Amino acid sequence: MAAYAVLGATSWGLTLASLLARAEAEVTVLTRSAAEADSVNARRGIARLPGLVLPPQVTCEPARSQPPGLAGLVVAVPAQHLRSSLPPGPGWRQLPVLSAAKGIEHGTNLRMSQVLAQEGWPAHLIAALSGPTLAGEVVQGLPAAAVVASSGDTAAAWQRALATPFFRLYTSQDITGLEFAGAVKNVVAIAAGAAAGLGFGANTIAAIVTRGLAEITRLGVALGARVDTFLGLAGVGDLTATCFSPISRNRRLGELLATGMSAGQALTAIGEAVEGASTAPVVLELGRLNGVDVPITAQVCAVLAGTTGVRDAMSELLTRQLKAESNGL
Amino acid sequence: MAAYAVLGATSWGLTLASLLARAEAEVTVLTRSAAEADSVNARRGIARLPGLVLPPQVTCEPARSQPPGLAGLVVAVPAQHLRSSLPPGPGWRQLPVLSAAKGIEHGTNLRMSQVLAQEGWPAHLIAALSGPTLAGEVVQGLPAAAVVASSGDTAAAWQRALATPFFRLYTSQDITGLEFAGAVKNVVAIAAGAAAGLGFGANTIAAIVTRGLAEITRLGVALGARVDTFLGLAGVGDLTATCFSPISRNRRLGELLATGMSAGQALTAIGEAVEGASTAPVVLELGRLNGVDVPITAQVCAVLAGTTGVRDAMSELLTRQLKAESNGL
Repeated sequence: MAAYAVLGATSWGLTLASLLARAEAEVTVLTRSAAEADSVNARRGIARLPGLVLPPQVTCEPARSQPPGLAGLVVAVPAQHLRSSLPPGPGWRQLPVLSAAKGIEHGTNLRMSQVLAQEGWPAHLIAALSGPTLAGEVVQGLPAAAVVASSGDTAAAWQRALATPFFRLYTSQDITGLEFAGAVKNVVAIAAGAAAGLGFGANTIAAIVTRGLAEITRLGVALGARVDTFLGLAGVGDLTATCFSPISRNRRLGELLATGMSAGQALTAIGEAVEGASTAPVVLELGRLNGVDVPITAQVCAVLAGTTGVRDAMSELLTRQLKAESNGL
Repeated sequence: MAAYAVLGATSWGLTLASLLARAEAEVTVLTRSAAEADSVNARRGIARLPGLVLPPQVTCEPARSQPPGLAGLVVAVPAQHLRSSLPPGPGWRQLPVLSAAKGIEHGTNLRMSQVLAQEGWPAHLIAALSGPTLAGEVVQGLPAAAVVASSGDTAAAWQRALATPFFRLYTSQDITGLEFAGAVKNVVAIAAGAAAGLGFGANTIAAIVTRGLAEITRLGVALGARVDTFLGLAGVGDLTATCFSPISRNRRLGELLATGMSAGQALTAIGEAVEGASTAPVVLELGRLNGVDVPITAQVCAVLAGTTGVRDAMSELLTRQLKAESNGL
């Protein structure tokens, strides 16, 4: 029986642990502390993901030692904590590693696969997972499909390890595009949530999704991604699910900002990592460095910083003087 | 003051009449009968669009004579009735005409702009409108953005006539792509509605949207459309709004089919034209004639014909043996 480790007793980490276990693997979830491990082991899940009941093959323990005989490591911690959460030691660096985090690191502007490479993993062992995969739906067994990308051949191995009849996985070689799409869509979802919070409807959100897809594609292609990744599950698929689903945390942040809360108040109210809030300033910086216009990100950053109100930001976005469409191609 | 005629006292036709009137035009809505005109004139709207109150500049009358001094004609009747509803006489054929119908004609496989050309309008006077524009939201003044395409220069004139601060219009020259996207997205929305009706979530609908966008793009490009149209408001924008919004009629049809109703029962229950149901067999035929794979359309057609159940069709769509993504580019 294969064995895997999952770093992070997060909603998504535990969901992936369950999927690995369903494919008949032993799974060790690496937690931040013994107390967290005890709590998750005892309740077989976490309060914020009520649909999840961990199968018996999944056990949690603090991330101190390397379990023997592992076939791979899944990393599912918030993007800004990924580097500091990685388990120490060269043994882990010889395992295939799958990043399931969606964000870009502050200060370095690195994608998660780039952080893993800097932290000692060889490029051919690194893969990344993305797509429309709201954890609350996946744990209920509702059908979902996602993409695993790697420059080496580990994507196919992760596909075999994680896929179930209701969780379909496709492979790709465009890890750059997959990670950019997954990171930036969370920023667009904040704008979509703000529109929903102001009482706007599907027409408005669809317009933001469309402009957001163009923004993500422009930036991603400038940074070396393949355009067709943005038209796939990790691009338009993940973007639409996150922007339209009321259970998306990033969209929820936008909804709360629209009620007049400050970013700090809204993030406290949500009580979990909201990747888009951390990623937005990095995307703005990447746009500036690469000469790519990122108008949605710029407005989201201004609202998060408190320098623009939600209504003014939305008005700026919806009334830009564009006569002919330009969709990033 | 400019004057326009709108053919069709439909939800969308009356919404467009209101938008034209807001830009200070006199608008005549051409109805099927004097009784229909009297009814709409008396109640200043229609029962199925409760948010609409027609402004005084809009009056309805049966489509028998040509009002003098018109600047243009908007056609907003169901696609399958467009040809038979067109007002007779050469005078109308000298006016700029804007198709606001989203469908493809049975038997001829023609888009609405092609039907208008066959019925006597010169190509340079023909334009088409599409995008994420659920009428119930537009009449509430909720922000929306859409595209007007023409091969001549009438798109810019329609942009000036119809746009308001909350209804933004962009111009395009790809009338083929705009019309295909608008027609085929209604077929995909039936599949999305079926997924929603089976209790599936945003992950599943996002996967259908992604595969649907690839299907629309493949077919459209094979038929001469520009790929970037499918990434714009008339493509991904309209597709996402229609697939995710519970007020979309096409999605509603899918939801009802998922309850076990036959197509006939579901269409009767909705009581209005559901363009996707008429368009699906035409899209299937166009796919066959052009050697383009249209798997979502094929399953929607099978369910509508009663030869496949909704669960079997969904299972077929969600478990296709695709290992690497292919997004139509």
